[in-house]
Amino acid sequence: MPDNREARAAARTDMIMRTTLALAQETGYAKLSIEAVAARAGVGKHTIYRRWPSKGLLFLDSLLSLNEPALDYPDTGDVMADLRRQIYAAVDLLTGPQWGPLYQALVGEAQHDPAVAAGLGERFIRPQTDKTVARLRAAQEQGQVAPGFDLDLAMSILSGPLYFRFLISQEPLTRDYVDRVLDALFAGMGPRGPADAPASA
Amino acid sequence: MPDNREARAAARTDMIMRTTLALAQETGYAKLSIEAVAARAGVGKHTIYRRWPSKGLLFLDSLLSLNEPALDYPDTGDVMADLRRQIYAAVDLLTGPQWGPLYQALVGEAQHDPAVAAGLGERFIRPQTDKTVARLRAAQEQGQVAPGFDLDLAMSILSGPLYFRFLISQEPLTRDYVDRVLDALFAGMGPRGPADAPASA
Repeated sequence: MPDNREARAAARTDMIMRTTLALAQETGYAKLSIEAVAARAGVGKHTIYRRWPSKGLLFLDSLLSLNEPALDYPDTGDVMADLRRQIYAAVDLLTGPQWGPLYQALVGEAQHDPAVAAGLGERFIRPQTDKTVARLRAAQEQGQVAPGFDLDLAMSILSGPLYFRFLISQEPLTRDYVDRVLDALFAGMGPRGPADAPASA
Repeated sequence: MPDNREARAAARTDMIMRTTLALAQETGYAKLSIEAVAARAGVGKHTIYRRWPSKGLLFLDSLLSLNEPALDYPDTGDVMADLRRQIYAAVDLLTGPQWGPLYQALVGEAQHDPAVAAGLGERFIRPQTDKTVARLRAAQEQGQVAPGFDLDLAMSILSGPLYFRFLISQEPLTRDYVDRVLDALFAGMGPRGPADAPASA
């Protein structure tokens, strides 16, 4: 009965993922261990090691299994409003008590473990980048984004300032901050021509 | 002879800092331990624990003791050229074999240890932010930065895209990337008026 075997395997995977997340939330990522997950999930630790060679990769799969990072862009025809809505959703996730600290721990682990960094890049950042570029390309075609704007930079320019607050300065990520960043990125740092020229040069 | 005692203490601190960095480079940050630093530096581990309660704080002090992060802005009167030069210097540091991987490990640790995050923020990011704001304020007064540009965002908007590549997408940090980011940030994402308007709307 292969169906039953598959169903059992899927249920076991699901149990391991949920146990990993629950333990990470209880103890913090630093104290998480494959042994503790195995014990609580009631499976042998080799069952876990066979599929996830490191705690970081187990954690990556567990976090992505939540499926919360489905941060799609709406397309209402107003790119600024759509970006704002999508980034608000990202900020809600990052500042939420559930996903935020876990994602922060994952990015921390990615700095020590190249396999985690590669998995995070391919499975979360790359699809997110593709969605961002697609939404901005549509906006560019509609004249809402400057024709010369380098779309390949869209993801790092839009999300870089969020990650800077989230990871580096660790100041609060607020909707007000998102609004200010979007306004500044759309207007640009450079002067805009005659109206912006200094009174005396 | 208090002078001798102070000199000996300073020499011992210096030895501990250099041993910490050397060990971190040899073994990677994850395997670094206060015990190993104490053994190699020839001091008791309590000598280290008394002053640095965690490996993360010891590592933070060691890295900042290199004094390399003195990333001052030149002021030639051309803000774009000055930013470019300063950011090139930051990129050289981040991509260098010495400081780059250590700084990456430090930021990783800051995601798990709030004391490291606070120290990094106060002792490296805050002074760097102040310098960035001061250079851009001068440029704004000279009409080289839009009068409406929100200076408080300068650091996150300028360095966010660098950190995004360094920590998240982990693509190469090149001078070409810096040039493209600066051009995009100065021009802005929004259309610039009649010349940028779409042929048909």
